[in-house]
Amino acid sequence: MEYRIEKDTMGEVQVPAHVYWGAQTQRSILNFPIAQDINKMPKEVIAAFAYLKKAAAITNFELGVLPEDKKNLIAQVCDEILDRKLDDQFPLVVWQTGSGTQSNMNVNEVVAYRAHVVNGGDLADKQKFVHPNDDVNKSQSSNDTFPTAMHIAAYKILIEITIPGIEKLRDTLQAKAEAFKNVVKIGRTHFMDATPLTLGQEFSGYVSQLNHGLKAIKNTLEHLSELALGGTAVGTGINTPEGYSELVAKHIADLTGLPFVTAENKFEALAAHDAIVEAHGALKTVAVSLMKIGNDIRMLSSGPRAGIGEIFIPDNEPGSSIMPGKVNPTQCEAMTMVAAQVLGNDVAINIGGSNGHFELNVFKPVMIYNFLHSARLIGDVCVAFNDKCAVGIEPLTENIRKHVNNSLMLVTALNPKIGYYKAAEIAQTAHKNGSTLKETAIALGYLTSEEFDEWVKPENMVGKI
Amino acid sequence: MEYRIEKDTMGEVQVPAHVYWGAQTQRSILNFPIAQDINKMPKEVIAAFAYLKKAAAITNFELGVLPEDKKNLIAQVCDEILDRKLDDQFPLVVWQTGSGTQSNMNVNEVVAYRAHVVNGGDLADKQKFVHPNDDVNKSQSSNDTFPTAMHIAAYKILIEITIPGIEKLRDTLQAKAEAFKNVVKIGRTHFMDATPLTLGQEFSGYVSQLNHGLKAIKNTLEHLSELALGGTAVGTGINTPEGYSELVAKHIADLTGLPFVTAENKFEALAAHDAIVEAHGALKTVAVSLMKIGNDIRMLSSGPRAGIGEIFIPDNEPGSSIMPGKVNPTQCEAMTMVAAQVLGNDVAINIGGSNGHFELNVFKPVMIYNFLHSARLIGDVCVAFNDKCAVGIEPLTENIRKHVNNSLMLVTALNPKIGYYKAAEIAQTAHKNGSTLKETAIALGYLTSEEFDEWVKPENMVGKI
Amino acid sequence: MEYRIEKDTMGEVQVPAHVYWGAQTQRSILNFPIAQDINKMPKEVIAAFAYLKKAAAITNFELGVLPEDKKNLIAQVCDEILDRKLDDQFPLVVWQTGSGTQSNMNVNEVVAYRAHVVNGGDLADKQKFVHPNDDVNKSQSSNDTFPTAMHIAAYKILIEITIPGIEKLRDTLQAKAEAFKNVVKIGRTHFMDATPLTLGQEFSGYVSQLNHGLKAIKNTLEHLSELALGGTAVGTGINTPEGYSELVAKHIADLTGLPFVTAENKFEALAAHDAIVEAHGALKTVAVSLMKIGNDIRMLSSGPRAGIGEIFIPDNEPGSSIMPGKVNPTQCEAMTMVAAQVLGNDVAINIGGSNGHFELNVFKPVMIYNFLHSARLIGDVCVAFNDKCAVGIEPLTENIRKHVNNSLMLVTALNPKIGYYKAAEIAQTAHKNGSTLKETAIALGYLTSEEFDEWVKPENMVGKI
Amino acid sequence: MEYRIEKDTMGEVQVPAHVYWGAQTQRSILNFPIAQDINKMPKEVIAAFAYLKKAAAITNFELGVLPEDKKNLIAQVCDEILDRKLDDQFPLVVWQTGSGTQSNMNVNEVVAYRAHVVNGGDLADKQKFVHPNDDVNKSQSSNDTFPTAMHIAAYKILIEITIPGIEKLRDTLQAKAEAFKNVVKIGRTHFMDATPLTLGQEFSGYVSQLNHGLKAIKNTLEHLSELALGGTAVGTGINTPEGYSELVAKHIADLTGLPFVTAENKFEALAAHDAIVEAHGALKTVAVSLMKIGNDIRMLSSGPRAGIGEIFIPDNEPGSSIMPGKVNPTQCEAMTMVAAQVLGNDVAINIGGSNGHFELNVFKPVMIYNFLHSARLIGDVCVAFNDKCAVGIEPLTENIRKHVNNSLMLVTALNPKIGYYKAAEIAQTAHKNGSTLKETAIALGYLTSEEFDEWVKPENMVGKI
Repeated sequence: MEYRIEKDTMGEVQVPAHVYWGAQTQRSILNFPIAQDINKMPKEVIAAFAYLKKAAAITNFELGVLPEDKKNLIAQVCDEILDRKLDDQFPLVVWQTGSGTQSNMNVNEVVAYRAHVVNGGDLADKQKFVHPNDDVNKSQSSNDTFPTAMHIAAYKILIEITIPGIEKLRDTLQAKAEAFKNVVKIGRTHFMDATPLTLGQEFSGYVSQLNHGLKAIKNTLEHLSELALGGTAVGTGINTPEGYSELVAKHIADLTGLPFVTAENKFEALAAHDAIVEAHGALKTVAVSLMKIGNDIRMLSSGPRAGIGEIFIPDNEPGSSIMPGKVNPTQCEAMTMVAAQVLGNDVAINIGGSNGHFELNVFKPVMIYNFLHSARLIGDVCVAFNDKCAVGIEPLTENIRKHVNNSLMLVTALNPKIGYYKAAEIAQTAHKNGSTLKETAIALGYLTSEEFDEWVKPENMVGKI
Repeated sequence: MEYRIEKDTMGEVQVPAHVYWGAQTQRSILNFPIAQDINKMPKEVIAAFAYLKKAAAITNFELGVLPEDKKNLIAQVCDEILDRKLDDQFPLVVWQTGSGTQSNMNVNEVVAYRAHVVNGGDLADKQKFVHPNDDVNKSQSSNDTFPTAMHIAAYKILIEITIPGIEKLRDTLQAKAEAFKNVVKIGRTHFMDATPLTLGQEFSGYVSQLNHGLKAIKNTLEHLSELALGGTAVGTGINTPEGYSELVAKHIADLTGLPFVTAENKFEALAAHDAIVEAHGALKTVAVSLMKIGNDIRMLSSGPRAGIGEIFIPDNEPGSSIMPGKVNPTQCEAMTMVAAQVLGNDVAINIGGSNGHFELNVFKPVMIYNFLHSARLIGDVCVAFNDKCAVGIEPLTENIRKHVNNSLMLVTALNPKIGYYKAAEIAQTAHKNGSTLKETAIALGYLTSEEFDEWVKPENMVGKI
Repeated sequence: MEYRIEKDTMGEVQVPAHVYWGAQTQRSILNFPIAQDINKMPKEVIAAFAYLKKAAAITNFELGVLPEDKKNLIAQVCDEILDRKLDDQFPLVVWQTGSGTQSNMNVNEVVAYRAHVVNGGDLADKQKFVHPNDDVNKSQSSNDTFPTAMHIAAYKILIEITIPGIEKLRDTLQAKAEAFKNVVKIGRTHFMDATPLTLGQEFSGYVSQLNHGLKAIKNTLEHLSELALGGTAVGTGINTPEGYSELVAKHIADLTGLPFVTAENKFEALAAHDAIVEAHGALKTVAVSLMKIGNDIRMLSSGPRAGIGEIFIPDNEPGSSIMPGKVNPTQCEAMTMVAAQVLGNDVAINIGGSNGHFELNVFKPVMIYNFLHSARLIGDVCVAFNDKCAVGIEPLTENIRKHVNNSLMLVTALNPKIGYYKAAEIAQTAHKNGSTLKETAIALGYLTSEEFDEWVKPENMVGKI
Repeated sequence: MEYRIEKDTMGEVQVPAHVYWGAQTQRSILNFPIAQDINKMPKEVIAAFAYLKKAAAITNFELGVLPEDKKNLIAQVCDEILDRKLDDQFPLVVWQTGSGTQSNMNVNEVVAYRAHVVNGGDLADKQKFVHPNDDVNKSQSSNDTFPTAMHIAAYKILIEITIPGIEKLRDTLQAKAEAFKNVVKIGRTHFMDATPLTLGQEFSGYVSQLNHGLKAIKNTLEHLSELALGGTAVGTGINTPEGYSELVAKHIADLTGLPFVTAENKFEALAAHDAIVEAHGALKTVAVSLMKIGNDIRMLSSGPRAGIGEIFIPDNEPGSSIMPGKVNPTQCEAMTMVAAQVLGNDVAINIGGSNGHFELNVFKPVMIYNFLHSARLIGDVCVAFNDKCAVGIEPLTENIRKHVNNSLMLVTALNPKIGYYKAAEIAQTAHKNGSTLKETAIALGYLTSEEFDEWVKPENMVGKI
């Protein structure tokens, strides 16, 4: 490979000749050979940096500390990053400086050197027109840019991926709840037969879970909307022009279309990431809901002969070549695996969040990595589960009817007619003999076939539907 | 011990002669000999049951399904429970039926049999005037009473213990932030010396964390305010009179003074406890904050000679008999241990919450046990930490001044005066020689003693305070 | 209440007149009003302290630094503690100094003052014959006694409660695996019908899990056998006589009958508790196994009509008065709740274990509290589950036979006889028509009734049993 | 893109014309659009599959059920996979069928179709010479291949990456412990000054932690060495030739050079992955150790002026351009972030492990994904931390000497000379006045300068070194 020489305050570094990054990025590659093929800094963080660098350049220009030409160049390169034209210029991993300094510098270097090229310069030039620190990072510190990028990335993914994914699944389940509202089926508590409900009622519980989960996520957005930018090194805002914090937050809000504001307290914003912890607390709540829903769906569809078999789910791939009807609930499996992952990610975030010290939390990369992972997984899996499973769910009415009609629990409907003791005798006898309630009731002489049919109606035991 | 005979549907059971509980409670003692000395069902759950049994009795009476005399007796015994007069009547442990059925029956039995005695009866009577199932449990099922008790207990402890505890600590830290607002000190990032801030600013970050934590908790109260009662066995409300759900929720709200409402969706309310998962997500966020605060305080008070030593914390107990000044940060230790526990409890709650199946979640007791544990620990430890540590925190001004004045970081103030390169030379020379910036600057001939004193003022580097 | 005055190096403290504890214990009660009614320092830790205080006294005597009369008095009181005669003398909670100093002092004070009384003195005497620090704590520090007590308590509970509990359940499941070895049943993968196995084979998987779990626990005992005692304040062993570490470990081994040795490295032994983390890693592995087993048992016993219903489990309490056969799997519920708790406790232990700093870990109490909780819960729940559930498990052969005989999966047995394509056609047709394989095969004319019966034998599809 | 048509039992699928995979792989891409850019099935799993497919082909050949030419072709393609020549042929993600079926089929298809091409065929041929199911997957099921691949991948990465990484760091720390064995320094407990020890002793604690961690990992290898292969669909070994299990395990052992054996109980091996849970329990123990070590190193190196500053760590990247000596402990930060991640991964694994049902655990992919992540992160970060930090650690002797000499704790050395009370008076006076022990002792007239120098020698307070 060909190399060029770049310099930082520690001296010279050989950098691949054609990359836009510089000395500090290259040092980080060499210093942190940790899971480099699998744990790149998430692309959402890079995009968030592009928004903030552009907003900072505009703000610096407006406040008179950055010339217009440099502002324009920086903004142009940030747009290239957002257009995903420079994806291969961000080689660093999560496992770096805990402040994310090196990814901040990676962005600074790429923006500056690419700007230099856009401006007609050459990567081999010793002096570049735009300087990574003095221009791109002006009025900033890694300590306030990285947490700002965390909040931008977190807020955006929730709005763009997570919430729409959950809503899509919620809407389908809502439609199913409506469609199945008259399908009377046996209830199950402790895995045991219980009084009936409708399949629509059962599904309405899932809808309610997801609605509450969406509300929980939205409750955490306000904290995430607070941006650290303007706090610089320790939260005091040293080296920022007057009015910078509010203005740069406004520009970030304008560029992203999201309601970001400057954090009221910058000391918290650098030293703690409770907003991430709190918002992931909502994500883990959704994960808990998804585990419940995924488990129910796979058990309801179990069979085809020796399971519960009350719903049909679509057959997306060969389960077994010789075994028709063996439709493995693979979307449920993906969804519950995602739930397990999110619950693990939550602990990593908690530990990272609890270990800030003095003016800085240095678990920033691991926190945002796990957050974005969870947010993405939940959003994606809800869509996949929706498209490949939920939309195709249909009741298997024959099994449903068999289960509810066979149920000994229906005997409770006879209490007001023949009294508790006779009703219990019917049920006990039926259980012992493996007979139906109806035949037992008639055999015991407590009521006629017609009376049974009139009095024992599961559809009258499900309340308002 | 003397025994009497009680019966349930399975037959006769020997029960200690003088206890108010009956057959089902006694069976549970025998069936679940699991950590019986340390894991009793939390008293907050028992109290919550007392509220709900009283509210149910009133509602049943108002809806015409329970006579007034029984209603009055039930209400009277519930008040005795709330007055803590019957504490020894609830011997069951957390590790029982996962629906909490046996604790529901324990309450039913105690209320019924104590009511019988209040009514002039004798515990040895075969027939009691009030029946555990038919009267005390009327219009109810374990499946809806236990989750209702969970929400009542959780909401109450947050309002009565957790939030006030956090607020108390927050207020003290707020007062300290104000009191220390002019105490300029060195900042620390990556544990390394950084630019200065004030001690008040540092403490304001803690205040902001706790304020956000309080807001996070309050955001979760609405979901907790939803009560399952009225769902009965599977959520359909079978065996409840018309209007029961809304009315019983209103009575619980009146009795507790808290804004409880009937859950819009009873199927979720029985089969999932996402409200508990979500609310504990807020508690774990506070735990994360407390870990950060506790760690900072103990490191800031470290020493007395070989640590950071920038704050004084009260001396509550002998640290070392021979070592004056060895004030161990014991309140920080209790607080950070609590944080560890809450973060562990969170996982237990997540696992419990994710494992509901069909119409019922049967991890109810373990979920509420961990929730109440966390809520109590956070509330209590905030008060202890406040009273025994936070209120007595004072700056150790001599050390603070020494650290900030010795700091090489102050050299940044010289950049605009003598230029970046000379400033850096001063700092590098001082670092190499172990000398102060001032003496080095003068020795290098770049400025006078008077200029140094005028230009290098840490108090000008801390922004708005 | 009546009080007496006790003194420590900080001054005088009012102590209830008749308790054996002294000033430092009383200060701790006042300083840590945190969950005092529910989180007492576990009794196993107190017992472990009794062993170590006795061993230390004997060692100090043998090494010539403690007179014989004091040694005898100390040993006598330690025996009283072990005989549970002084249980009410240890009022402190887990949430105290993170080194456990105050519980160490609690033991020192109780041993000293009780010894004084045994020796004919009076609690009101200003001077006691035995001194808490100078005599009972001689050659010790909280920093080495508490971790020693942790290892003693942890090792003992594993040997006495946890391992025997697991073994008891393992033995029963082993007997069931043997008893059910010829009960051919349908297999289930992805919750879907699969090829057959025997019920004994299914149970043998549980046995294998528990056997591996037992091995995992035993693998961690060696690390737990290392004792910190002799490290004193920071691990250097300051203030201990020559030969003390090895001798005191030997005495502890003799007194407990367990193979304790002195830790090779005392710096680790004070500053880290990886042995606890590691051993709890084995306990969480067992919890994972128990969750699997508990879930399987409850699903296999589900029904009675609309579930899987392949095994009978004992009926320990009323499930539903009107619903015969509604045997709730309550022991499974207790067991899986325990599993959830242990998995949460694991996280609390990890966080505590990872937060030691320099020469001391100050999360000792929270670590041993969670460890003992898990060890106890696993041991107890295995016994309860064994006695009240596992021993009574029996196959429901009718359902088992129906499920396996109805299974479309049996068609695979026809491949070598009539070819893959015809076999598949049979299965697909049977699935579409809801008919049996046999009637479909005959109807399609591919084989006779006799051939079907001869060729399709589930018992030939289960391998070696 | 150009496509070709491939078929499976569900029908035809369009597959990119030039890839080696087939219909089932393509379906999985379409069915699971979940985090496809970041969560590919780990390459270690693919490699493990290559070993097992090769071993299975050899075994099938030796047992007479696969012709030699197909065996040779399969083996040849497996070697290509192991040589990383087919990396781009495995596009599937972790979030798929929970049995890993689709990755098994991906390997089957790639091996079969590539073999067909190697054999002179064309990808567009309808009939391929080697069949994915009938040949490559012969005597196998996803249900036994995927767990086998899990164990191979897990065992290999522990041996090749994790253990060597830890050992490398352990060796360096051991060398440092030896090198620093005479560097007497102040001890710190509760973050407070305590009695002295040597820097070598402090480091020896880290060595002991890692040695115990290595032992803990090795203890878990035996369970990991058990292979599920031969259990096929449900553990009974249906469709395998006599002797297959033992022989295929032997071939895998030969090919990998690792001591694999066939699992004694195949039912556990498919339905539970406790070996993964157990082994990750050892990894999380190491993570706990690394968190402690990383924290200590960064605190010991804190400063340069206002921290503890007792060790020098190498300067790998610019900390601050203006702030010489601001060497951020970036390797510590990467290491402690890794620890947080591993502790999170542990929970994901626990949840996955606990959720097996009946004959199959369907959280296989998420379990091995997290396991390999942790194993890799620990191995890599130990090497990075070692090379870029640990090897360069040196004592900052001036600070160390200052801290230990200033310490009031040294007064304990005077107890035997002048008595406890006078010693305490010296310490208390020195603390109050901020004076040294020596000047205070002389000023109080209790001893001479010469006596102080003779009696108060920190190096005599550190025990055996």
